[in-house]
Amino acid sequence: MSPPLTRAALAALDAADPLAAFRNRFTLPPGVIYMDGNSLGALPNATPARVAEVVATEWGQGLIGSWNHHGWIDLASRVGEKIGRLIGAPAGCTVVADSTSLNVFKALAAALELRPGRRVILSQRGNFPTDLYMAQGLIRHLGGRHELRLVEPEEIPAALDDTVAVLLLTHVDYLTGRLHDMAAITRAAHAAGVLTVWDLAHSAGAVPVDLAAAKADFAVGCGYKFLNGGPGAPAFFFAAPHLHAHMRLPLTGWLGHAAPFDFDGAWRPAAGIAQAIVGTPPILSLCALEVGVDIALEAPMAQVRKKSLRQTALLAELVGQECAGHGFRLVTPRAEPERGSQVSLAHPHAYPIMQALIAAGVTGDFRTPDILRFGITPLYLGYAELWDAVRILRGIMQAGTWRETRFHARQAVT
Amino acid sequence: MSPPLTRAALAALDAADPLAAFRNRFTLPPGVIYMDGNSLGALPNATPARVAEVVATEWGQGLIGSWNHHGWIDLASRVGEKIGRLIGAPAGCTVVADSTSLNVFKALAAALELRPGRRVILSQRGNFPTDLYMAQGLIRHLGGRHELRLVEPEEIPAALDDTVAVLLLTHVDYLTGRLHDMAAITRAAHAAGVLTVWDLAHSAGAVPVDLAAAKADFAVGCGYKFLNGGPGAPAFFFAAPHLHAHMRLPLTGWLGHAAPFDFDGAWRPAAGIAQAIVGTPPILSLCALEVGVDIALEAPMAQVRKKSLRQTALLAELVGQECAGHGFRLVTPRAEPERGSQVSLAHPHAYPIMQALIAAGVTGDFRTPDILRFGITPLYLGYAELWDAVRILRGIMQAGTWRETRFHARQAVT
Repeated sequence: MSPPLTRAALAALDAADPLAAFRNRFTLPPGVIYMDGNSLGALPNATPARVAEVVATEWGQGLIGSWNHHGWIDLASRVGEKIGRLIGAPAGCTVVADSTSLNVFKALAAALELRPGRRVILSQRGNFPTDLYMAQGLIRHLGGRHELRLVEPEEIPAALDDTVAVLLLTHVDYLTGRLHDMAAITRAAHAAGVLTVWDLAHSAGAVPVDLAAAKADFAVGCGYKFLNGGPGAPAFFFAAPHLHAHMRLPLTGWLGHAAPFDFDGAWRPAAGIAQAIVGTPPILSLCALEVGVDIALEAPMAQVRKKSLRQTALLAELVGQECAGHGFRLVTPRAEPERGSQVSLAHPHAYPIMQALIAAGVTGDFRTPDILRFGITPLYLGYAELWDAVRILRGIMQAGTWRETRFHARQAVT
Repeated sequence: MSPPLTRAALAALDAADPLAAFRNRFTLPPGVIYMDGNSLGALPNATPARVAEVVATEWGQGLIGSWNHHGWIDLASRVGEKIGRLIGAPAGCTVVADSTSLNVFKALAAALELRPGRRVILSQRGNFPTDLYMAQGLIRHLGGRHELRLVEPEEIPAALDDTVAVLLLTHVDYLTGRLHDMAAITRAAHAAGVLTVWDLAHSAGAVPVDLAAAKADFAVGCGYKFLNGGPGAPAFFFAAPHLHAHMRLPLTGWLGHAAPFDFDGAWRPAAGIAQAIVGTPPILSLCALEVGVDIALEAPMAQVRKKSLRQTALLAELVGQECAGHGFRLVTPRAEPERGSQVSLAHPHAYPIMQALIAAGVTGDFRTPDILRFGITPLYLGYAELWDAVRILRGIMQAGTWRETRFHARQAVT
């Protein structure tokens, strides 16, 4: 048994942290320990000036000419290409487009068409709701000939049979933080003739992803979590190179056309991944996303992963050490290969406890039915903050502060 | 025959213009006469500060809590409601969501399902390409059982038969500026049991629209043209109240769910129009849009329409007076009830002429194959600017400047 953790030991890790300087690249409010970067990432210092430039100069002065002169017309591809580097995508396979939900729809629709004899979309019970909702909407829309089949994670390999067209999985589970073995599962899927759609919402910028090595078919993901792209930042879409010439996407907008400004009567897909762009992208939000992505590209992923694993392990250990007997149960896997960049704790009173934590300056979030969720963003979260957060949690549990009525009023949170 | 127009006469109109003060609500670059607000509207003065506040304060300081504390969670509905007031929508029928293209897909898919025995999507030959592309993608996606039938505007009434499920029209044609009689066409459609989808991209904020009086079924539109919402501003979606309980939208994302944060396994549509929201909206772009919409709400539409009709008529007259013999042909209808807020001129050398105009400080745009397009935004375009623009055009034609090689190089423009 190792000696108890101390604040001094954690502060020493901060002092030796090779990523420590990244903290100064972000603005965070004073008095807040921010552990909700898996819901909304923090603001990069460089973002306000970049957004102000886009608004005042590119839009205000350049007006319509900025589509050419400031490269707006290529922005979805340019930022997509950068995200591709974070997720191990070959060049020319990733674009920024729409929302994660809409990109799930595109990928699933394309996959079903590539496997015409098969009628099942396989996914995980408890997958992020919008992924399942989009699959449900698609199936209904296609006349109900397909089926969404949900299984537990450990049942996936056995469920991969020749009725399954496509496997839709979230790489890191939003609720538990469990990380799937993308390469192994994709291999098993392919062995059964099944295509894969990986949702990287909680992976991009947070854990190593190598889509090329895993031979992933489709992937989608989110710009506003670990990429620090800002609220509602547009999402990304990836398709493996060998699919570009064969896939048919259902959402055929003018900016996915081979020649958008020819104003042809008939839609023809742009070569490569650009066919996944639909309408005009929200340029202000897209420029903000680029700032966050640029920072993520500067941070060596091996260091990010090392710190993330250490911080998630330490947080779990600290809760065990400081909050023993208060009824918390660790939900996130202890095994490193199975852990994303978050720690989830189950507790029967998770909601008011999280509200009390937030009021005390520790921002995590609640997820129904009983989960306290703490996102770990190594670029701006320090080791000593983990100590402080857990001591605040301990204080709340000891004093019973969470029982106050004001912490029980439910609010929408995202 | 009336006496020739003079700059002094136009300047007198500016002096008496009840909308003149709105010009000071917008930032425009010096030396530019901006007649491309039907492609990208100008920057409201208030937008940079509002966007800066959203970035630095709401995101940077409020972080995830801003979904509640700064009302982000209601923003798509709140701004949608404001746009609804501009287009004569009853309360609770309009939301901001996605792009115009995606909203066309939603509306068409819902309409086809509401008319299961009918297989035709009727539209206008030459309708804006993305509307036709989305229809094509939808038809293909549904297995090719439906047909996109394109007719000339004058053929529409006769084409409304019992094979037609839905009529998809752009209220003001992007190329010619021709304005459809929404009420009459909708009446004719309904008499044939046909649903209507109106694309208001060139209407919202530019011409009077009364969706309720016209009994329009669905409408979609764009935030970045006459609403001055910024490049790629999100779009809007309208459905008439009696459809809300019956329509089934194909793009079923978590924010269109009846209880997004219950994380139910099964999608259930939100009551009312909120079911048309799909994924998380781009908050920065959406906040910028709200500033533009707020200005539009301040301007009395009767005054906007009156000035727009006068300016479009004057521009056509000035081209006739000053550029006679240079080969321009007016494409936009002369009849007021048929004219939107733009003037389109056909010319065999439209592309290089427009490039030369832009280089000389008059921003309009080219649309293939031979159209010079001038958008009229009465809130920031003056009468004397029309004179100046046409005199610059005359100078270009007289000097033959447009023949210079540099004006012939094609660029992407949007």
